[in-house]
Amino acid sequence: MGKRVAVVLAGCGVFDGSEIHEASAVLVHLSRHGASVKMFAPNIDQMHVVDHLKGAPTEEKRNVLVESARLARGDIQDLAQLNVKELDAIIFPGGFGAAKNLCSWAVEGKDCSVNDQVKTVLQAFHGEKKPIGLCCISPVLAAKVFPGCEVTVGHEKDERFPDVPGTAEAISQLGCKHICKNVNETHVDEKNKIVTTCAFMCKAPLHEIFDGIGAMVQDVIKLA
Amino acid sequence: MGKRVAVVLAGCGVFDGSEIHEASAVLVHLSRHGASVKMFAPNIDQMHVVDHLKGAPTEEKRNVLVESARLARGDIQDLAQLNVKELDAIIFPGGFGAAKNLCSWAVEGKDCSVNDQVKTVLQAFHGEKKPIGLCCISPVLAAKVFPGCEVTVGHEKDERFPDVPGTAEAISQLGCKHICKNVNETHVDEKNKIVTTCAFMCKAPLHEIFDGIGAMVQDVIKLA
Repeated sequence: MGKRVAVVLAGCGVFDGSEIHEASAVLVHLSRHGASVKMFAPNIDQMHVVDHLKGAPTEEKRNVLVESARLARGDIQDLAQLNVKELDAIIFPGGFGAAKNLCSWAVEGKDCSVNDQVKTVLQAFHGEKKPIGLCCISPVLAAKVFPGCEVTVGHEKDERFPDVPGTAEAISQLGCKHICKNVNETHVDEKNKIVTTCAFMCKAPLHEIFDGIGAMVQDVIKLA
Repeated sequence: MGKRVAVVLAGCGVFDGSEIHEASAVLVHLSRHGASVKMFAPNIDQMHVVDHLKGAPTEEKRNVLVESARLARGDIQDLAQLNVKELDAIIFPGGFGAAKNLCSWAVEGKDCSVNDQVKTVLQAFHGEKKPIGLCCISPVLAAKVFPGCEVTVGHEKDERFPDVPGTAEAISQLGCKHICKNVNETHVDEKNKIVTTCAFMCKAPLHEIFDGIGAMVQDVIKLA
């Protein structure tokens, strides 16, 4: 039997939602492993909407669950409905939505707050010793909720959040251990069953990011 | 040197734009082939906006180029800027956006009209004997613009457009030849340099759709 895996989305589009190619790669690799996938997103407003052509915020309002449904082709549930007993593992793709809608890292760095449902769900999988996979910026969710855990967001230098301390540095300041890894590598925190890979946090061709996410999915499935 | 390939998007989301996983798969496979990719979309309003959670249209207005920029991570140009001389091939992912925003097939079937820019661009690549790749519902663009060409949209029966004649049947009525193919197969019209694969027109696991699109990209690159 394939593993039952939850994928938690944060909207649809790198600058205000889930990074589309990361989310799609997660789903392609889970499909190849024969996993049965359930997708979830919080039923909340996005922090803001970004015009991805201009790279600037607009006055629009959009809902995280409704926009995430684009990635899920409509087959998605409110994160409040997630039941850890029915699932073997959980994966969080990256994109700014993870740092804007699932927590406030994009604005507050290590002093961010994590969405209550996201926190509850993470603690539930951790408590059941079920694996948690995260990529790109999403590992900050684990760093914030599980002090002392080990994660990678790639290398120490980070061009994506120039206004806050480097992501790796901030993770260390939270009492976690940051492990430097290349785009094709994962880090597995065996004790906490947390699997991370840097994805778009590294500058790399898209197929290398796709393969790195494949390695992350494989490690999650192994631990499940 | 890698081939220079245009990818034409139609929004972002299966029900009113480009099918996200098809577009992402095209880009992953092009990256693996070392292609240099330029993305384009027409700078027009979407036919409508669909709430992908409810599966129903909303009152919102969204622009095809602006929403396509989500898939392109901002790196996209107005289709009016496309210069065929700078490119070796062109690929159209599917999704209802191809049949709603690039032409009116979703409403009018074989009597549809094709967006003028889309038509001009298709004719330009065809005239230069440069390959054209299409998947899912996008092959109807070729069927409408190049009477007599050969394409596949999978099998004769089609559950996705219940209100219009079967897509394969309508393609035949346009004087084109529909070739039945499975999700992992392409059809190559050697004379017209048109490569098609059914993608989400077939019910198949996501990784098989991903691989079918890989075969289409490979055939396009070979012909370029």
